[in-house]
Amino acid sequence: MEITVAQLAERIGAESLGNTAGADRLIGAVAPVDAAGAGEVTFLTNDKHKASLGACRAGAVIVAERVEGLDKPQLVVKNVEAALIEALTIFAPNLKSAAEGVDVTAKVADDAMIGCGASVGPGVVIDSGVEIGQNSVIGSGCKIGENSKVGANCRLDSNVVIYHNCRLGNNVIIQANSTIGATGFGYSFIDGSHRLVPHNGGVVIEDFVEIGANCCVDRAKFGNTIIGAGTKIDNLVQIAHNVVMGKCCLIASLVGISGSCRLGDGVALGGQVGLADNVDLGSGVMVAAQSGVINDIEAGRQVAWTPAIDKKEAYRTINLVMRLPEITKQLKQLSKRIETLETAKDDKS
Amino acid sequence: MEITVAQLAERIGAESLGNTAGADRLIGAVAPVDAAGAGEVTFLTNDKHKASLGACRAGAVIVAERVEGLDKPQLVVKNVEAALIEALTIFAPNLKSAAEGVDVTAKVADDAMIGCGASVGPGVVIDSGVEIGQNSVIGSGCKIGENSKVGANCRLDSNVVIYHNCRLGNNVIIQANSTIGATGFGYSFIDGSHRLVPHNGGVVIEDFVEIGANCCVDRAKFGNTIIGAGTKIDNLVQIAHNVVMGKCCLIASLVGISGSCRLGDGVALGGQVGLADNVDLGSGVMVAAQSGVINDIEAGRQVAWTPAIDKKEAYRTINLVMRLPEITKQLKQLSKRIETLETAKDDKS
Amino acid sequence: MEITVAQLAERIGAESLGNTAGADRLIGAVAPVDAAGAGEVTFLTNDKHKASLGACRAGAVIVAERVEGLDKPQLVVKNVEAALIEALTIFAPNLKSAAEGVDVTAKVADDAMIGCGASVGPGVVIDSGVEIGQNSVIGSGCKIGENSKVGANCRLDSNVVIYHNCRLGNNVIIQANSTIGATGFGYSFIDGSHRLVPHNGGVVIEDFVEIGANCCVDRAKFGNTIIGAGTKIDNLVQIAHNVVMGKCCLIASLVGISGSCRLGDGVALGGQVGLADNVDLGSGVMVAAQSGVINDIEAGRQVAWTPAIDKKEAYRTINLVMRLPEITKQLKQLSKRIETLETAKDDKS
Repeated sequence: MEITVAQLAERIGAESLGNTAGADRLIGAVAPVDAAGAGEVTFLTNDKHKASLGACRAGAVIVAERVEGLDKPQLVVKNVEAALIEALTIFAPNLKSAAEGVDVTAKVADDAMIGCGASVGPGVVIDSGVEIGQNSVIGSGCKIGENSKVGANCRLDSNVVIYHNCRLGNNVIIQANSTIGATGFGYSFIDGSHRLVPHNGGVVIEDFVEIGANCCVDRAKFGNTIIGAGTKIDNLVQIAHNVVMGKCCLIASLVGISGSCRLGDGVALGGQVGLADNVDLGSGVMVAAQSGVINDIEAGRQVAWTPAIDKKEAYRTINLVMRLPEITKQLKQLSKRIETLETAKDDKS
Repeated sequence: MEITVAQLAERIGAESLGNTAGADRLIGAVAPVDAAGAGEVTFLTNDKHKASLGACRAGAVIVAERVEGLDKPQLVVKNVEAALIEALTIFAPNLKSAAEGVDVTAKVADDAMIGCGASVGPGVVIDSGVEIGQNSVIGSGCKIGENSKVGANCRLDSNVVIYHNCRLGNNVIIQANSTIGATGFGYSFIDGSHRLVPHNGGVVIEDFVEIGANCCVDRAKFGNTIIGAGTKIDNLVQIAHNVVMGKCCLIASLVGISGSCRLGDGVALGGQVGLADNVDLGSGVMVAAQSGVINDIEAGRQVAWTPAIDKKEAYRTINLVMRLPEITKQLKQLSKRIETLETAKDDKS
Repeated sequence: MEITVAQLAERIGAESLGNTAGADRLIGAVAPVDAAGAGEVTFLTNDKHKASLGACRAGAVIVAERVEGLDKPQLVVKNVEAALIEALTIFAPNLKSAAEGVDVTAKVADDAMIGCGASVGPGVVIDSGVEIGQNSVIGSGCKIGENSKVGANCRLDSNVVIYHNCRLGNNVIIQANSTIGATGFGYSFIDGSHRLVPHNGGVVIEDFVEIGANCCVDRAKFGNTIIGAGTKIDNLVQIAHNVVMGKCCLIASLVGISGSCRLGDGVALGGQVGLADNVDLGSGVMVAAQSGVINDIEAGRQVAWTPAIDKKEAYRTINLVMRLPEITKQLKQLSKRIETLETAKDDKS
């Protein structure tokens, strides 16, 4: 799909400045400054790419304010990131919609309710008591366990498994091969063996949550494991039983959140972060990648390292660790200087 | 399902003390002290919740010994954790059993043997020579490769993949989207490229092993990768080729166990632990979360940190690392005091 | 399958030395020195096992040069690792080939092209515009999204999901439950919520790439996420959007590579390594297990630790960290010695 620069400007609500003769150029895609060609629009979200704009071959550029001396159509918008999302949406690959209705190879329980406009793909298994909201798309090979509810406008990609008694809100996306509602890792050691504690609880995933591929969100022992509205989760993330997560959190890949942790709103966890059991993170807490959190963290704090401490303190301490060779050298020198003083003293006495 | 406090006491073998008038209350679920309502039974596994019992609204409480001054039916048992498991089992959600027999959409090889009472779900593929033991439940979308054996009373949840020549004992549970018997990560660099070493071995998973969701247990090059009886494995765990694990181990989420590691019985690995190739962990070894083990560890030891050392030593050393800012300040102060002494000496001489 | 030692020698191109009377022994498998029995051939890739050869019960041994005083047929080859691969291939379990053609339960779009000799397993879903190359095997439950191309001689194991617009070269192997082309973790925070940045790009996986089980390779925002030819990836690995990886890299299990990282050729990442966004690793870089890389690393360097530094320096620094208890003790002793000097000075003045 191609549209002119002028049409693009209109569709993303931009003021068109700079080279107005370029308004008729055809644009078919979005590309970053260093890769864009004449048929592509680029964007400036970061001033460090401003210098490269001169050499950039893009047919037009989306900017927050006019760049002086640039001989290229400039689409000036209030929020470049929002305009970028709109542009990418315009030029998104044109994929066929999922077929409405239930595929003949799907196995849907008689009492399950499939909403209007919903799509249930090949090989899907939907158990008794399940409800699928309108316009939701259940990809091939998915399994939805007994009494689970999926809201409207959700998208479960292929081979996602939702166990029984889970509730997904509206506009939830779960990517391929993720597992929601498996039994958590809770055992009691009784008479010489680990006995599984039954997990009678479920999972609640609120509206607009997006979960990546190959993730695990375990069901609760009691009550529910809860993922708050608008929270986004990367791939290969582990969320254990009875975790309660607030709204609009960001959880990067390979994070492990142990049982009964509570996260406030807007918490951000970097890649490979681990939280010990029962840790409380206040709203807005940010944890640097690979950190291990073993204590509660107050709202708004940024922490790093294992065990996680205040981020600035962590960086200062890490720098000192890196200086340990120097520190030990200093220790030796001090020892020598003391020895000299001691010898002098002994000589005198 | 609801039963009276008196009935519950009988079913979990408890002595009913305290408020005997409450024996007729109806109980329908188990809940923790801070969340239980009048129709729920709570429990005291941890003395730190004792103080909260007064304000707790639960209809009854399971305890190891009578709590004085508590106006609530008390169900006194020898082992609260065991009684809790029984109570949770009584109040577990009442799910439909998997349909006995082979689903019409499953594809089962002519020479495969499916045990009496077993259930083979929709879309399952069972290759030649496979045996499924009696009463085992194979979830939708599973694949069982050639000549693999699954014992009796096993449960493989949806989309589990078992490659060829794997052997599962009895009462094994594998949760959704896990992969057993993939080829391990073994390459030889020959003539400029990495060539895969064929993995002629298999995987043996002994009785009562439970494996979480989205886990990987690789097949062996020679012989078998072995998971000992009663071992429990959390989600997203990697177990490489030729690992031999003992009985009743506990492996937390996101752990990576490299090739040919040997674990004794009752080994416990915290979340995100990594073991280097060929490491030996003796029976009862405990490794703290996020640690990296590169050397063998003797039976019974507790280790932490990367590289993993004795746990107490690790915590002492981490404390000293956290004190590095103070240590460098002390160094500076010492240096100044020496300087003062040196000046004094110079002045005198 | 069993063959004589003499036949084996011929098939792996070995010179047969030592006990020539053993040339008629039947061999049916390969086994390591400490486990081999009379009907098995063993091998010596590592001189540390040489001493154990005397007690080894193997019917023959593959070696690089004749071992003196060993009363056993010796198969002398130029490259033991290459010969081992050949021997393992000879004795590999004899599995049935995947059935040629499209299984009746697969759902293949009318305009998809399935190459000659290819096998499309039960329950597979192949969308519009897809091409599958000749002799490729698509395992049960796989999903191949719109317009994606799979080359010749590929093997996708059960339940692999390939999203739309991905391109796999020839001889690519992807093991079970892996996900290729899911949308990456890219959000802009706009008007109080995280909005997904559309990912218009794809994934390119070049020839001879092998990817383990339960891995994730995300699609690009623009252009392609690229895995270079001959690269091998272990299980449970996360490769984020717009990563560009060179040829013949080795990526161990549970590694997380963040967005837009660039890896040269022959890069090796140990288990649980994490790379921050936008990091450049030159060709031949080796990163030790569990390290966290936050800065670019020049070609050929070996690094370790978080944040990753030169490996030797890292090990030296870690040793000093372990010596911190001793270092603080020295500090105290120095302080005492200074105190003594100060007292002496004060006494004199």
